Formats: sequence, structure tokens, C-alpha cells
Amino acid sequence: MPDLPRHPFDPLDGDRLREECGVFGVIGPPDAASFVALGLHALQHRGQEAGGIITHEARTGFHAAHRFGLVRDNFTKASLIDSLPGSLGIGHVRYSTAGSKGGTQIRDVQPFFGEFTMGGAAIAHNGNITNANALRRELIERGSIFQSNSDSECIIHLMARSIQRTIPERMKDALRRVEGAFSIVAMTRTKLIGVRDALGVRPLVLGRLGDVWVLSSETCALDIIGAELVREVEPGEMVVIENGEVQSHRPFEARRPRFCIFEHVYFSRPDSILGGRSVYETRRAIGVELAKEAPVEADLVCAVPDSGTPAAIGFSQASGIPFAMGIIRNQYMGRTFIEPTEQIRNMGVRLKLNVNRALIRGKRVVLVDDSVVRGTTSLKIKEMILDAGAAEVHFRIASPPTAWPCFYGVDTPDRDKLLAANMTADEMRVHLGVDSIRFISLDGLYRAVGEAQGRDASEPQYCDACFSGDYPVRPTDMISAGRIRLREDA
Amino acid sequence: MPDLPRHPFDPLDGDRLREECGVFGVIGPPDAASFVALGLHALQHRGQEAGGIITHEARTGFHAAHRFGLVRDNFTKASLIDSLPGSLGIGHVRYSTAGSKGGTQIRDVQPFFGEFTMGGAAIAHNGNITNANALRRELIERGSIFQSNSDSECIIHLMARSIQRTIPERMKDALRRVEGAFSIVAMTRTKLIGVRDALGVRPLVLGRLGDVWVLSSETCALDIIGAELVREVEPGEMVVIENGEVQSHRPFEARRPRFCIFEHVYFSRPDSILGGRSVYETRRAIGVELAKEAPVEADLVCAVPDSGTPAAIGFSQASGIPFAMGIIRNQYMGRTFIEPTEQIRNMGVRLKLNVNRALIRGKRVVLVDDSVVRGTTSLKIKEMILDAGAAEVHFRIASPPTAWPCFYGVDTPDRDKLLAANMTADEMRVHLGVDSIRFISLDGLYRAVGEAQGRDASEPQYCDACFSGDYPVRPTDMISAGRIRLREDA
Amino acid sequence: MPDLPRHPFDPLDGDRLREECGVFGVIGPPDAASFVALGLHALQHRGQEAGGIITHEARTGFHAAHRFGLVRDNFTKASLIDSLPGSLGIGHVRYSTAGSKGGTQIRDVQPFFGEFTMGGAAIAHNGNITNANALRRELIERGSIFQSNSDSECIIHLMARSIQRTIPERMKDALRRVEGAFSIVAMTRTKLIGVRDALGVRPLVLGRLGDVWVLSSETCALDIIGAELVREVEPGEMVVIENGEVQSHRPFEARRPRFCIFEHVYFSRPDSILGGRSVYETRRAIGVELAKEAPVEADLVCAVPDSGTPAAIGFSQASGIPFAMGIIRNQYMGRTFIEPTEQIRNMGVRLKLNVNRALIRGKRVVLVDDSVVRGTTSLKIKEMILDAGAAEVHFRIASPPTAWPCFYGVDTPDRDKLLAANMTADEMRVHLGVDSIRFISLDGLYRAVGEAQGRDASEPQYCDACFSGDYPVRPTDMISAGRIRLREDA
Amino acid sequence: MPDLPRHPFDPLDGDRLREECGVFGVIGPPDAASFVALGLHALQHRGQEAGGIITHEARTGFHAAHRFGLVRDNFTKASLIDSLPGSLGIGHVRYSTAGSKGGTQIRDVQPFFGEFTMGGAAIAHNGNITNANALRRELIERGSIFQSNSDSECIIHLMARSIQRTIPERMKDALRRVEGAFSIVAMTRTKLIGVRDALGVRPLVLGRLGDVWVLSSETCALDIIGAELVREVEPGEMVVIENGEVQSHRPFEARRPRFCIFEHVYFSRPDSILGGRSVYETRRAIGVELAKEAPVEADLVCAVPDSGTPAAIGFSQASGIPFAMGIIRNQYMGRTFIEPTEQIRNMGVRLKLNVNRALIRGKRVVLVDDSVVRGTTSLKIKEMILDAGAAEVHFRIASPPTAWPCFYGVDTPDRDKLLAANMTADEMRVHLGVDSIRFISLDGLYRAVGEAQGRDASEPQYCDACFSGDYPVRPTDMISAGRIRLREDA
Repeated sequence: MPDLPRHPFDPLDGDRLREECGVFGVIGPPDAASFVALGLHALQHRGQEAGGIITHEARTGFHAAHRFGLVRDNFTKASLIDSLPGSLGIGHVRYSTAGSKGGTQIRDVQPFFGEFTMGGAAIAHNGNITNANALRRELIERGSIFQSNSDSECIIHLMARSIQRTIPERMKDALRRVEGAFSIVAMTRTKLIGVRDALGVRPLVLGRLGDVWVLSSETCALDIIGAELVREVEPGEMVVIENGEVQSHRPFEARRPRFCIFEHVYFSRPDSILGGRSVYETRRAIGVELAKEAPVEADLVCAVPDSGTPAAIGFSQASGIPFAMGIIRNQYMGRTFIEPTEQIRNMGVRLKLNVNRALIRGKRVVLVDDSVVRGTTSLKIKEMILDAGAAEVHFRIASPPTAWPCFYGVDTPDRDKLLAANMTADEMRVHLGVDSIRFISLDGLYRAVGEAQGRDASEPQYCDACFSGDYPVRPTDMISAGRIRLREDA
Repeated sequence: MPDLPRHPFDPLDGDRLREECGVFGVIGPPDAASFVALGLHALQHRGQEAGGIITHEARTGFHAAHRFGLVRDNFTKASLIDSLPGSLGIGHVRYSTAGSKGGTQIRDVQPFFGEFTMGGAAIAHNGNITNANALRRELIERGSIFQSNSDSECIIHLMARSIQRTIPERMKDALRRVEGAFSIVAMTRTKLIGVRDALGVRPLVLGRLGDVWVLSSETCALDIIGAELVREVEPGEMVVIENGEVQSHRPFEARRPRFCIFEHVYFSRPDSILGGRSVYETRRAIGVELAKEAPVEADLVCAVPDSGTPAAIGFSQASGIPFAMGIIRNQYMGRTFIEPTEQIRNMGVRLKLNVNRALIRGKRVVLVDDSVVRGTTSLKIKEMILDAGAAEVHFRIASPPTAWPCFYGVDTPDRDKLLAANMTADEMRVHLGVDSIRFISLDGLYRAVGEAQGRDASEPQYCDACFSGDYPVRPTDMISAGRIRLREDA
Repeated sequence: MPDLPRHPFDPLDGDRLREECGVFGVIGPPDAASFVALGLHALQHRGQEAGGIITHEARTGFHAAHRFGLVRDNFTKASLIDSLPGSLGIGHVRYSTAGSKGGTQIRDVQPFFGEFTMGGAAIAHNGNITNANALRRELIERGSIFQSNSDSECIIHLMARSIQRTIPERMKDALRRVEGAFSIVAMTRTKLIGVRDALGVRPLVLGRLGDVWVLSSETCALDIIGAELVREVEPGEMVVIENGEVQSHRPFEARRPRFCIFEHVYFSRPDSILGGRSVYETRRAIGVELAKEAPVEADLVCAVPDSGTPAAIGFSQASGIPFAMGIIRNQYMGRTFIEPTEQIRNMGVRLKLNVNRALIRGKRVVLVDDSVVRGTTSLKIKEMILDAGAAEVHFRIASPPTAWPCFYGVDTPDRDKLLAANMTADEMRVHLGVDSIRFISLDGLYRAVGEAQGRDASEPQYCDACFSGDYPVRPTDMISAGRIRLREDA
Repeated sequence: MPDLPRHPFDPLDGDRLREECGVFGVIGPPDAASFVALGLHALQHRGQEAGGIITHEARTGFHAAHRFGLVRDNFTKASLIDSLPGSLGIGHVRYSTAGSKGGTQIRDVQPFFGEFTMGGAAIAHNGNITNANALRRELIERGSIFQSNSDSECIIHLMARSIQRTIPERMKDALRRVEGAFSIVAMTRTKLIGVRDALGVRPLVLGRLGDVWVLSSETCALDIIGAELVREVEPGEMVVIENGEVQSHRPFEARRPRFCIFEHVYFSRPDSILGGRSVYETRRAIGVELAKEAPVEADLVCAVPDSGTPAAIGFSQASGIPFAMGIIRNQYMGRTFIEPTEQIRNMGVRLKLNVNRALIRGKRVVLVDDSVVRGTTSLKIKEMILDAGAAEVHFRIASPPTAWPCFYGVDTPDRDKLLAANMTADEMRVHLGVDSIRFISLDGLYRAVGEAQGRDASEPQYCDACFSGDYPVRPTDMISAGRIRLREDA
């Protein structure tokens, strides 16, 4: 309903998997909203379309602000932060989901709020509810009024209809009806609540700064406020924080966890810590592994900025081929630019990236990228490098071929748009017009994330559905809608 | 006079030398304004406070737009670009000069325009006129009305009072009265004009894309529009481009050039080409040189992002100590942020940078930075690294100690604020609380930019006044105002 | 949740009764949103804080926009109107209600929308639901999630829980649970619906322009689009318009109507037609009646602009005292002005009004105003007139003393703030420091609106609760909350 | 150069003569900018396109702000007013001049500022310099750089080239070179200066509030700040106010004054005092005179709002025909509205005005308007009235036929667009399709403004060139450009 933000004229962003959301919550500081704004700023890479914050203050009740655009452009005004008083708050940053009808509306921006007989509650989540459509139909039939297109509003309505007496118990009731992969932060007037689904597909960590407790999608948002990492919220766990105490609940049946392996490859920030490991180090290790699996004779190793850099450094260190900044990113590239003339539109990628021509000329170049989705970016990067006079171009990809869409909170194209779902590696080489292209193996990736024996095919340690088609949670709505045929159906 | 942009809450930008300006001009394309906007976007690192574009179209005359803020935020609307028709245009991006009384006003934003009897002319420059105050006083006494605080308006008034019959001849008249270091782009109704001062202190290149001719501060702005580098405009040269022809004039006496060596160290973009050399490669070579001059035992080489990265790579390659991304920059950091609570303000630097804690803990770290100005950034960076648990911190600086202010278009603090003007390297080590700090030698820097024999002390090949106090152009106004005592005066 | 509009620095607006809302709906034209925007613009006097429009188009479904501020400042951009396609639409303008906790939020701005099993519906109303709090408590207990603080959201939830098969039938179900005084416009995917409560307290008219049917609070909004008045929707009637057909339903028990008499006095625009009479003519007749009831010797009759003008003209015509523009209104007065220095703040009223000093000096002046609420405006006006040198000031008020708050959709102060609830006319004269003050009698007012016999005390023809304390609909929530003690309770 | 304001979609404003400017200056109060803003707000009717304020404070020098749009929308923010410190300030509101090439640019908005050897000065004027083009050509040839298209910049340049030692003396030098009709407010660092041209065509008054001295185009701007009228600045007088003293100079040769008679008819606000007379009273007297000169049998006298109202009241009083508000103005009409569909565009005038249909139906209506320029408004008003069912329409115009353009600071169409230059009154009646149309005679107008004997044809007491073609100041530039053939040339 607002004037929607224009789609960025950004030739690269269209060809990346995009994490849908980041969540953050805090209890204890006098000015929770400032902490949430800082936390969301640190999680901005997980969602750049919109953000929201809800706080609670004993005297004045709940306060909310939802805005399109970046945290820094919205939640930076004293006037807005001052309108969000209280020592308890949660926040959310988001991309639009692929399935949203029309554009996102401000009403779709989380956190959501509901007033119950025993008081209000707010909730925000990262991930996806895979039976949301079925739940929504049922709830509307029983008289619920939905205010958004967001799947997560289902949780609020399920809670409203629960006959439990406390909000955490109502949330358990609701979550037992819900299928999917999600990490939740929620709040009542006095409690901060965090939940991860039974498989722990999406991340959620618990941090602390003196008497202040924090929940966050990633540890980098603890760093920005100077909090220390206490532990990850465990798969299937609900933590309820009140009066400085953390209680742990287990609303779901115990199952073997399957954390999203792509968080290691691309989604999380390189300065975050996942499963006790530096994400930067894991990505460097992927580069090392890749250099072993797919060696090549070359003069320079360059990264496709910025996400390919750690793996490129690792590749360089393992191969002995010098690392160089062959492609330079314009740090002033914003989200919009000139609606260009036809002539300029064709320059496309140069607005964001430029090749270090004097460096590249005549060189055999290894280009390390984190993934190939549609392949459109790879094509453009290759052209830029060849235009600059490179002698050879060798792609080395820090993930296995992305051949299956994700239904757990990541924005992926349909299967027929995924290059790896439709071509062999050799066909890709021809299609892209490069001298070679190689992907890390699935086992190699598992080794790089610390599984010395590689992937346990009978009981995989991670969710790797985007590479393997092995979906640990049934995508109910998608199957009903005929949007996907699972591999095991074939 | 406009609502001035708020000063960025950015703990780093306050401690860098800042190039004052970038200039760009184009003649030939149907939509010159789009080209100028693209060129200025590529030169944004040279000035982020404001920008301006003037174009000329035969039918409708001259058109102008001046705006505070980034190119991408202003010169991106079709409505604005459409208001700048014509196939001839020039543009400018700027920082405020240290000496401006009060804040910058939109009237101070270049290019400037003047109407003469033979038609209009527009002019923009990068650099500084060192006798501007004296000229201004004289012109006011003779009845000129100044519309801005900008020194460069003098040139327009001197031209207005010239009795020459053509605008290029009037410009020559004017420039002969002017002292300083400057690169100029100017335009009449039919001509694009470029000038570099006799010493060629500031850069200016000539490029070409088919029938379209381009002038730009740096080659990276040729790349963004796909133009190729023809050559640098030479020190003391004026080029006049009309009807696809480039004429070369020599309005100044021939002198030995003294290009600004700091363009190699920091100002220019790493993907630009200066004097036939890749800036990235030069900076990498500085790192190599630095590793030889100031070796150290350590576990990791890290850059202070982003400008220290090429030298850090060079240092790593020469020393064999692995390069790592120990400090991560938040790519969504904009120009403003929360007016923070006291508690949060103290977090300061974390808004922009975060340390890769899991990587740094227990390590001996070499930190490569491009320069030390006031030293405030170095202090903060050191604290972040030690907080993260580093065992040792060794600063290696990719330039000699910055001990003298620049008067040639660079925003430097007064001498008493420059750390290196007031401390020895060892005092700095103690002041900063690090295990060691070493600067590259002036000779080492000259070697890295390609002068195998180092600096020629009798006739230096570059302007290195900020390191040496050897000022090739007398800073007349500054001396009159008692703002500086030159080294040779001592 | 939005940045709230600043409170106007307007010394007069704080001392008027304010109509809460205006509604408008249209079915038939290709661009319903343009018609609704025009209609709301004509109804702007009924609510200036915010406005909203919802439309429906067969292909793309429902579309909505809600904005703070004036219609002309928001619903004027082609981009916004274009985002509201379809040939069926309703709209609403509003003031904030006195009882809203904190400020209005954009979620409180009507029309409201709900999705039911059989499709969506939107609804907007003018008036007040007097048992809204009780209904809300009951609905929340049964699991409804409210998205706003607006009473009218109750209707949507009651509809959602109805087991009727069509939306009009569900609306009847819902309205039978609702107490209060309201005129509703609503829409489904194919129907435009209008309802007036059983007493017809608030206005609603039916208009037509060829095949286009219109519902509007007042006839002036028919004029702006060139539609003609067909008839008033009758008290207790529901009209359902579809495919060019108007069906009439009677969901409520028949009762004797009691239209709001203050619509004649002040709320409606003078160019509207109420009950077949020109509002302007009625107000002129009030002035005539007032001159008969409360004659005075004087030199000039002046109006308190602008609402007092018709009655002042009538007073002049009946008394023979010349009418003059003694107080001039600044037509450029907007909603905000300088946050003034103390000195200037004291000038207050002069920003909006100025006395025609040369005219007033030495004259005995009759000042005709429409009503006295708190009396603060009267005090200021009196001071202005005396400062300008008037010899005498006589207030003549075009309504009886306002001694009781309105609970039917009008923003009135609590009883203890109403001057007439706490002073006799003579005490007011002393308090205001004027030579005389007289109000029209209640019977005189009834005569002026066309009831030749005056008020029928046993069965009053109008709702005149603000004058008489005789409330035709029980203000349930207000009594529960102890906010009012009714006269008959005493 | 800024984003220009959209042209108002206002069917009436296009058909009025428009005063070009209002000026205001103040010396003495601690916060001059607030006073100037208030004064300009009261003068807003004299220019709505843009405004500017310049102030001076001893410690910080001159400060300036120029903005497109209304005073209330711009000069209302504490942040802007706070940026204009000092106890001495002048301001200006303006329309664009008919002759401006392209749109107005912010650089054209007054006051103008110039820095001289003895300090700065700012200047703003109401009126027109009739030899500005000639002066500009001469100044450019001698090396002046013009920063605007505004004629008044000439004065600053002439002052810059004067060899006098003080600014008031330089201003006298400059004004002796200037031809035209103008009232000036100017300021130095310590003086407030006011000047009226030798004929006193445009108004300027001197006011006082304690120690604070004020200059203003009209007295209504004295009222808003509570200042009292001291006297009019006299034709040919320059007043210089410093340290609470008012000095009077006489830089021009004495001539018989010829004040603009149209200020009485339309330009000035009805609550201003001109030549000791209430403007309202003068306009009422015009109506009385008109009723005598051009009586008619009718049922109602209505004004074309709002400027026709005083004359309509006078007409009613003299004729005995009742005055009524037959046309109602929408007070929320702003400057822009929907870019309407074709269908809606045709509704045109209804956005701003609405006829009181119930009142007008079947009536013989006298419509009193202040003037007829192109006649387009008259046509639309007539149609509205007839559509509403009026039986007869009689136009009575409160000024003689406007047959000649004004060259003294009023925006008039060229002669061939003026209805009265091309038709007799009877042809107008047929063209407009009304029952009668009558204009007040020129002598009648003179009588109404207090000249009992009417116009002195040999030495007219007023400038009435727009009615008579008798131009008291030669329009040099216009004649050179062939834009006008004077009557005496014929």
C-alpha cells in the first residue's frame, strides 16, 4: 500500500540466492530500540527490502515501526527511535518472498503483533512455514481476519484461538500445528522468547551483555553491541527470558538436526561464528578443498566480489597462485541508478564492478565465486574479464551445483531457471564460454565445514536440499500448488 | 543556504586525507548528462559532499543542476537527467574545503557558469588556487560580484575582464594570473576544454569512445562508459576539443612535472591507471617494499579496510605471512546513523567495521594501513584487534609519516593535528600502544611507484609536500593568513 | 507507527466541535479512484488528519492506500492513483477520535478490509459505535486479532464470524450487534453498499452520473464530480448497488429519525443540501431568527470567519445593520507554522486572522459565531476586535449553548471543559468581557431548520444532545468507563 | 536549476493579473528572521512561487535562504529559521515574471546579495526595471558576471562599480541609472534601507514596534507582528534606518506621484490601508459606485470569490438587492491536484469553486468580479451559474476594461490576449453569453478611491496604464524588443 521501492538496477543481485530474513531481540537495556536497530543493521545482509521494530514499555505499552528500505536510512532518526521506548524489543529485516502476490506491502513487514485476553505479543521469524496456505484457509473459514499476506501471521491467529492461559503455552500450541523451517523471536510484555524448529535449519544464537540478554540470527549482531556469545539456541528448543533468567523448553519431538549448509557458503557474514567455527575460516577451507579437487595452471586467483573472496584466498594459499583484486567493486553503488539510455543500459555490470584492466591483461585468471544460480552473472563477469584482455578464464565455484529450489526461507528461482538443473558441468563450460568451470563436491563441502568423513548419505548432517534435492521438511503448500515435483516422487 | 547534510557519524572518515574533487567532461553523445552522471559516479571517491552537472544544447542553451549528496541519490532520476539535454557537458564532485567559512552552500558547488559577450562558459576544477584570496580582493575592488566562496570563481571573473575575443584565449589570460595546482574541465557552447597546471600536480586524462571525447580525473571513469584511455593531458597543457578534433595548447611555461604521489598511495581508485601503471599494482608493490624495509614475525597480515588491502596483499606475498580478512566492513554503512545513546556512541567503530574474532584470537597480527593522519583511527583499530584477543599488533603504514598539510586541493588538518608532525615513530608506538609501527621510507615509496633510484632530492619527481614539507607552489594565501610557516622559513 | 503529523499551531481549530469523518463510494466509472479522491477532497472539511481509498478491479483484486494529511497532498499523484485501479471504490477522511490511546496510527485509518471465505470486503463509516469496547473484549476472547484501535474494526470481525453466505447478509448480522450512530459505505468485489443507522443521525446521500452510482456524506461531493442527487439513504436503510441496480434493505427496526441538528449549524458545507434545504439558507435563517430573538443596536455585523458568515448575513438582513468583513482570514494559512519565539507565540491568532482595523475603529460591532465550545476562541477574537478600537462588542451565537458532549462521531471536550456547562449566559458575558452575548434558543434553531412549531419535546425531531443532554442512543462504553453521567441519571 | 514546482491546476489563477512581489524588512528584534517570515506570510498574496530571506548577525555575518513554495511550507522549520540569526533582515516573495526565459531558477529568487569592498549588501524589490536589458548588456561587456535572469541583479552590479564610499551612496548612484517602477528594501551590515521610485508606483510603508523598525509592501504585514503604521515611504524617498534613527534622502527629482490604482482594486489585501484608506472600504465604495453607474433588476448579488466580495457587498447595499454566498470556495484547494482523466479535467473549476445550487436555482443573479483579463474565468463562472439553474446572469466588474499590459511588476498577458483590448463591452456580453456585463468607469473608480472630481486627464493622480494605455514610465526594453506599441505611437 505504500509507494513501493523501485527494483534495484543491479545486474548481480538478480542472480544470487537470497536469505529471506534476519531476526533480533533484546531484553534489559533502557533503550531496547537502539540495540535492535544496531542489531538489524549488522544483519542487513539477510534482508534489505524492509525492517520493523516493536518494543514494550511498562507505562506506555507496545510501540511499533515498520519501514521499507535500509535500517540506516530509517531507524536512524532520534524522532523514530524515541517513539519506540522500553527495555524489551524485537526486530526483523526482510526480503520479499518469491511467492508474494504483487509487491510487498508494509502490512507484510514483521514483527507482527496480536492482542490477546492476557495481553499483547509480537513475533518475527526467519524461515518458512510450509503448510501456511492450508492453515490460512482453515483459519479464515473459522472467522479470522488476516491483515497481511505473510505466512507467519498464521502463528498469531493460532495463538489467539488456543485455550492455554499463557503466551508461551499458546505459542507451543500454535507451533505444533505448523510445519516448516524457522527461527522465531517473540515478546510479551515481560518476556523475550526464541524458538528454533526441530531440525534447526535456520540459525539463532543467544548472547549477553551484562544483564542484557540478546537473541540474534548471527553472532555479528552480538559484536556490534559488544555482547558475547553464550550459545546457540538448540534445534527444537524454546528459550523464554524474563527477569534476567533464561528458561529452556522443548516443545518439539527430538530429531537429528539438519542446519542449512548454505549459511556456511554464502548467507552468513564472514565475521559470524556458526557451530563454533569462523565463517571466514570455513569459506577459506572451501577454497583450499577446491584447489585440491580442481587444480588449474594460472597466473592469478581473483574473487567475484565480495562473497567469493575468502574462498579465493584459500584457493590461492593451497595452489600457490597469487591472489589479486582483479575486479573492483564501486562502494557507492546504491540501490537505484539512472533509468539509463539503451546505450548505457548495455554497460550494465560496470556500474557496480570494474575490472582492473592493467592487471588482468594477458593473464590466465582463476575466478572464484560462491555459487552459480541462473548463470547470468557468470556470463557477464566472464565477458568483463575477457574484454579486459585475460588469456584464460577458469571458474571455481565454492559450492556444489545448485539444482533444487529452497523452500525454507530462501528466495530461489523455480527449478527450470537453475542452470545446474538443466546442464552438466561441461555444458555449462560451453554455455558460459570459459576455459573451465568446476564446482566443489558435496563431500568436499562437508569436509570444509568440519565433517572429516564427508556427507553421511543415510542421515545427512546438514540440510543440503538445494544441492541434493533431499528435502528434510515436506513442502506441503508447494506440492498442493503443483509448484514442485520432489525427487523421490520421480 | 540549503538544508545542509548532516555530518556523517563515521569514526574513520574523520581521519583520512580527502581528495577534494573529481572532474569529468564529455562531448559528442546525444545524452551527455547520462555520461557525466556515470563518470561522476565512478569518481565518487574523490568527493561525496555534492555534485554538479552543466550541459549545453544548441536549441535550448545551457542547463545546470547542483545537488548535495551522492551522484546515485541525485543524478538518477530521469526527470533530472532529462532537464539536462545536449551533447556537451561537464561535471564535478566535491568535498568541502577545510577553509570554507561556515558550511558549504549550494552556490559553492561547481561547475560555475558565466555569461560573456561572446556567449556562456562553464568551468570546474580539481585542486586549489593558492592566491585566490588576493585575486578575489582585487576583483571585488574593481566591481566584480562574487556569488560563492569558491576560489575557482576567480577564474570566471578574470575571464569576464579579459579583452580577448574567444573563450579559450580569455581562459589563458585568466590562468596566467592564477597560482596553484589544478586540473580544469570547461566548456563553451561548442568546445570541451581541459587544462592541467604547469606541474601537473592533479591528474586529468583524455579518453575516447568512437566519436565521443572524454576528459576525466581518472581512468576508472572511462571504464564505466566503455571509453578507452587515449593519453594523459600533459602538465601545462590545455586541450580544446571541438567537432571531433583535439587541439593542444601550451599556455604555461614548461617546468619539470611534479605529480601528487599521494594519488598513488590513497586517492585514486585501485582500478585506475596512473602514469601507465595500475594503481593496484603500485600499492601492492608498496606492500612488498614495506615487507622488505620493516619485516616482522607474525601469524596474519590484515588490511585496514578497504584502502589498505592491496599493500597488505603485497606485504603477505613478500613476507610469506598469510593474508586474512581480519577486519570486516559493513557494506550497508551509510552516511548517517542513529544519534546514539552515550553507551552506544562508545561502540563507535563497530558500526562500520567488525573484527573477525574467531580468526584473530591469540594471533600476532600485522595491520597494513595506507596512512596515519591524526592517529585516532589507528587507536580505535588497535583497540578492536586487542579486544578480540590478538597476541600482538604491528602497524605497517604504506606511506611515509604525514607531517605537513597539503595546500593543493586536499583536505588536511593543520600541522599541530598531524601525529607525525609531533611525534617520532617510537613515540607513536607508545602513544598507540602497539607492539611496533613502521612507515615506508620516502625512497621506498618512490621505488614502488617506479623510480628505481628513489627520490631525486635536488629535483624531486613528485609532489610529496605532505611528507617532506617541500612545497612546489608557494601557498600565498596561507602564508598571508599566517596559517603555515614553511620549512625553508625555519 | 508513522511519523505523526505535527499538531497545527492554530489557535482557532482547538475550539470547534469537529466532525470525525466523511465517506464516499462509487461504482461504475473506469477510474473509481479519481472519483473517490475528488469526492474526499470535497468532504475534506469533515476530516483533515488522514484519508484512505480502497478499490477493486476484476483482474487484479483489491487495492488500498491510506495516508496522513490532506487529500490534495496525497491522492494527487498519478503514481498513487494509478496504483488504485478498478471501477468500484470507497474512501474515507477522518479526524482522530478523542478517545484514541496515544496518536492515530496509519492502521487506524479507514477503510478497513477483511478477507472472508467468499471474498474480500472493505468498509468505512462516519459516526461512532457506542458499544465497541464491549464487542472488542468479547471478540478477542473468542480469538479475533485486532489490527487497529478503531471501533469500526469490530464490524469486520463480526462479519467474519457470521455464518451467513453473502457479505450483505453478514453485514446485517454484524450491524444487529452494534449500537451507535453511523453511516457506512462498504464494498465487495461487485457491490457498493450504504447503510444508515436506525435513527439516521449521520448523513448519507445517493447520487448518480449516468451509469455511475455514488454514495456520499454530503451533496457537495456529488457536485464536484457533476453527479446529481437522487435521494438521501433513509434512516435504517441499507442500499446495495450492483450492475447498475439499487436494492433497498431494512435491516433495522423502524424508529422515528433523529438527524444531527449540528450538521445544519456547522458540520456540513454551506453548498450542501440537507433534507431538501440549502445549508447556506438554513444558516442565514438562523441569523434572521437570532436577530429577532436577540436584537442589539450596533454599526456593523461581522462574522467570525468563515463559518459564521451565512448567519451574519441573515442577522444583517433582518436587523438592517450593515454586514462587513471586519475580520479577514489569511488564505495561505496552512497547518504548521514557525515554532515561534515566545514573543511571536503571543501574537497567536494574527497568523490566521487579521482585523480590518480602519473599518472597526470606533464602531459598535455584532460578532456572529456558530458556536461556543470552550470559549477560548471567543476570548481571542474579542481581544483582537477591542485592540482594533471597537466601541462595543456583541456576540450573537448561531446555536444554543453547547453543554453536553457528543458520543456519535464528533470530537467534543469533556463536560467540564464546555463553557456552557459551567456558566450562565451572563457569567459568560463577564468571563468574555463583552458587552453582550446571546445564543439562539433551541426552539429558534428548530424553526430555522424548518420546524415551524419548534422542538417537539416529547419526541424531538432531531438529535440535539449537545444542547439538551437528551441522548437518543445509550453511550454504553462511556457509561461503563465512568466518562459521563447522563442527565436522566441525575 | 531546481526541480521546478508544477504548474498549479487552477482554472482561475490563470486569468488574473498577478502582483509580482512583496518585500519586507526589519531592524532591531533579536530574531529578525522570524519577523520577516511572519511578514512574508502576510504578504503571500503578492507572490506565491518562491521566497527568500537574508539576515545579518554581527558575529557570524550574512545568512540567506531561498526556497520555492509558500512561506508556511518553507520558513516554518526551526532548523531553517535558526540558520538565519541576527537582528537585521529582509525578505521577498515573488511570482515569476512573464518574460523569464524558461522557468524560474532558485538563483532568480530575491533578495540578492553582493560583497563590496566596504562589506556586503542585500537587496529585494517589488516592481520592474524597464531598461534592465540594456543595462545588463552594458555590464556584461564591462566584465560583470550575472548569476540570475533577474533584472534587479543590475542594481547590485551598478553598485559594485560605483566609486562612492558608502553603500547608500552607491545605491543612489545605481538607481539614477535605472528606469522603472519599484519599491526596494535593502540592508547592509548595520542599516535597513527603503526606496520608492520617483512616481511611487508600488507601495512601501514604514512601521514600528517599540525599538523595532519595519518596512513592508503593505500594512497587513505590520498587523501580523503587532507593529503600528508610522507612515508611507514617500515617492522618490530613500529611508536609511540605523541605531533606531530614520534618515530620509531624496535621490530622485521631484515629480507628481502616480500610485498604482490597481493596488486598490485587487492586489492589496482588504485589511491593508493604502493612502490612509481601508482597502476593504475602497472596494465596497467601488461596488456602491458600480450600482449607481450600472443598475440592474435582480434577486441576488453574489461575488466571484474571494476578491469580488467587498464590491459585491457595496453593490448590494447601494442597490438593495440581497447579498448571498452563491459560489463557495473549497478552502482545502492547494496548488496541485490530480493529473485528472479527461473526463475529470472537464469538471475543472469545480475543484476550487462550487455553486450553491439550491440558492441559485431560478434566480436573477448579479455576479461582481474585480476584473476581466482574458475572460476565460468569466466564461467558466457563467457556465457554473447557468448549470445551477440561474434565470439571468449579470456581470458587474469592479474595474474599467483592462486593455493594456502592465510593465511595472505585474504579470499581464500580451495585449492581443486581453479581452477588452479586442472587444467592446457589448461584444463581450455576446462572447460570454450573459444577460449583461458592465464595467465601472475610470472616473467612477477615481471617485471610489477618493478623488471626488474623478480623473484629472491632464495630470492623472494614479498610474492607470492598464486601463488607459497612458504609461508614466517608458517601457524601454519592451519597445526595443518590439513587444509593445504604445498608444501615443499610434
